[in-house]
Amino acid sequence: MPMQPVLYEKSGRIGTLTLNQPETRNALSLDVIHNMQQKFSDIAQDRDIAVLVIKGNGPAFCAGHNLKEFTDPSCDIHHFRRLFGDCSDMMQALHRLPQPVIAQVHGIATAAGCQLVAACDLAIAESGARFSTPGVHIGLFCSTPMVPLSRVIGRRRALEMLLSGRFVSADEAREFGLVNKVVGPDELDDATERWAAELAQYSPFTLGFGKRAFYSQIDTDEPAAYAYAQEAIAVNCLAEDAQEGIRAFLEKRKPQWKGR
Amino acid sequence: MPMQPVLYEKSGRIGTLTLNQPETRNALSLDVIHNMQQKFSDIAQDRDIAVLVIKGNGPAFCAGHNLKEFTDPSCDIHHFRRLFGDCSDMMQALHRLPQPVIAQVHGIATAAGCQLVAACDLAIAESGARFSTPGVHIGLFCSTPMVPLSRVIGRRRALEMLLSGRFVSADEAREFGLVNKVVGPDELDDATERWAAELAQYSPFTLGFGKRAFYSQIDTDEPAAYAYAQEAIAVNCLAEDAQEGIRAFLEKRKPQWKGR
Amino acid sequence: MPMQPVLYEKSGRIGTLTLNQPETRNALSLDVIHNMQQKFSDIAQDRDIAVLVIKGNGPAFCAGHNLKEFTDPSCDIHHFRRLFGDCSDMMQALHRLPQPVIAQVHGIATAAGCQLVAACDLAIAESGARFSTPGVHIGLFCSTPMVPLSRVIGRRRALEMLLSGRFVSADEAREFGLVNKVVGPDELDDATERWAAELAQYSPFTLGFGKRAFYSQIDTDEPAAYAYAQEAIAVNCLAEDAQEGIRAFLEKRKPQWKGR
Repeated sequence: MPMQPVLYEKSGRIGTLTLNQPETRNALSLDVIHNMQQKFSDIAQDRDIAVLVIKGNGPAFCAGHNLKEFTDPSCDIHHFRRLFGDCSDMMQALHRLPQPVIAQVHGIATAAGCQLVAACDLAIAESGARFSTPGVHIGLFCSTPMVPLSRVIGRRRALEMLLSGRFVSADEAREFGLVNKVVGPDELDDATERWAAELAQYSPFTLGFGKRAFYSQIDTDEPAAYAYAQEAIAVNCLAEDAQEGIRAFLEKRKPQWKGR
Repeated sequence: MPMQPVLYEKSGRIGTLTLNQPETRNALSLDVIHNMQQKFSDIAQDRDIAVLVIKGNGPAFCAGHNLKEFTDPSCDIHHFRRLFGDCSDMMQALHRLPQPVIAQVHGIATAAGCQLVAACDLAIAESGARFSTPGVHIGLFCSTPMVPLSRVIGRRRALEMLLSGRFVSADEAREFGLVNKVVGPDELDDATERWAAELAQYSPFTLGFGKRAFYSQIDTDEPAAYAYAQEAIAVNCLAEDAQEGIRAFLEKRKPQWKGR
Repeated sequence: MPMQPVLYEKSGRIGTLTLNQPETRNALSLDVIHNMQQKFSDIAQDRDIAVLVIKGNGPAFCAGHNLKEFTDPSCDIHHFRRLFGDCSDMMQALHRLPQPVIAQVHGIATAAGCQLVAACDLAIAESGARFSTPGVHIGLFCSTPMVPLSRVIGRRRALEMLLSGRFVSADEAREFGLVNKVVGPDELDDATERWAAELAQYSPFTLGFGKRAFYSQIDTDEPAAYAYAQEAIAVNCLAEDAQEGIRAFLEKRKPQWKGR
């Protein structure tokens, strides 16, 4: 039986997607990308899941694309358009998932693997994790990883990573705003689980509403963002989960979410 | 005599607006919002005032909206649209004030209180101050606080604050770029006053000109920003206060501002 | 023989442009700006040069414009439009150069000198270097420096620099993301040269391709950025230098760049 390229399991309200090709350091082949897309489609519809964690089996989180697939004579412009088009769609689908997505990073996250970290909503790394966009070393600039990376860590640091391809440590990644938390290697699983469980106690309706609101306004100017956000929050006030949450707060009890 | 919800006093060229409802931790009720708006209107016209400080009386800077006002049966969509519409207008009015506005933060700044910090131009906090956007805890995502917060501290950190609602310490807030300075609790008043006095020695014309220029270009692309800024600075060069300032600099004396 | 205001020399694949008017602390007069523009024009065409370093002779990197030129009665609006228009063109030309540009900063970088640092792609500073946009001190707000500065270091910190004019240390500048590296004063030349040499070993075609891609997408929304970047990287895959780079990587040998 062949190994599945991507595993998915549910535990309570937390879904965990695991890249499962250690031998390629979880390279994002077309097959893996399509598997992830399909799983994202299912997860988007699963109201029992409040939070998604993405991690990798083997020595690395994800080393990007598999370069062995790049020099085959059959690899023409149509092939590369499909590969990077589908990969970009998958990355953007992360923003459209209603669940917050946490990247759990160990080992290395390079090229499209570093992009995957930047494209998730949140990220946690073990202290030995390293991040880079090393395409420049092989003549292939990390143009698609650049898109979320430059938006998450800012111009100067993104340009340094992209133009030098150098490895950034977990601590630097935290300072740059690429990861939110850094923990010891032995604590990574537990710390991620605790963090996911913390978020998973909140209303899935509110998490999804809020995440959608975030990406709806982040690329607009401030007046447009306010026009959107003030209507969003007014509508949110009347949602059952907000009315329940506010009452529970005033009554000093735990809220009972309805998911709407 | 009822306590005034918002106090305003002038000392030299510095105006100080003080939220004055300690019992609600300076909740931003409609009444308070309208009081602030009215005061901003007056301050905008007051050419004697070069810098505005916003602070709070009691144990907290500002704890956002008063949730007790959110579950009343009379609170329909029209009510919430007005509340968040007027609150958003007040926050945006801060950017249109000609005076630089410094948030002086002690205790907590949560939800719309955290938004108020992000919406000011500058911020100083005492070392025990804490910041959060905890709406997710009660099913009501902090959509309007998200607007200035995500623009000031960036995507990754804003998403963490919004999706987890966790408290961020004063030191973290400084690292995130949410506050500029952190001082000991006993030094907060003095340090704020010194900072305000430092800015207040500059030409109010130039401060207002510059602040307007800043917000006019920050949401545009870089070529549009340059097209605006190069004309702005050319015009600025001919202003009386610039000519006086340059001459004073070359003559090694203190400039005498005319305010134009 | 009068001293040349701007020196340019090539060493291997590295070009170095040196501001050479120590007596004005390398003020950006119209003459200097036009000299830089002319040199940028030449460098843009020079395929032997992979990386450009900009530094200054004398005690300072660059102290901005020469204020003595600002109070002459002949300085009317047309003069200032030309000065700031040409200066803004020069700064924007840095982004259009195919070569990565490293600012090598010692002493002070103030006003348009600080803008020059922000407008380069990368920056390194000696530990004693200081940065400021002090126009507010003389009634002349640093509106043009604000454009790249606010985009590189973010709103809160840019507003503080612009409204207070205070000096920011090299370490703060690194924390703000204005410089990438800080080294001891005695190591500045060597560290810059090593960094430039590191980048210069990569394909000039790829560096230019990537830099162009970076600035083409940084001011757009994320979907537009992806639409651009996915086509860019697909095209890049078929470039000779990418095919050579990937093969060299797989064969564990050094690539031989063709520059296309």
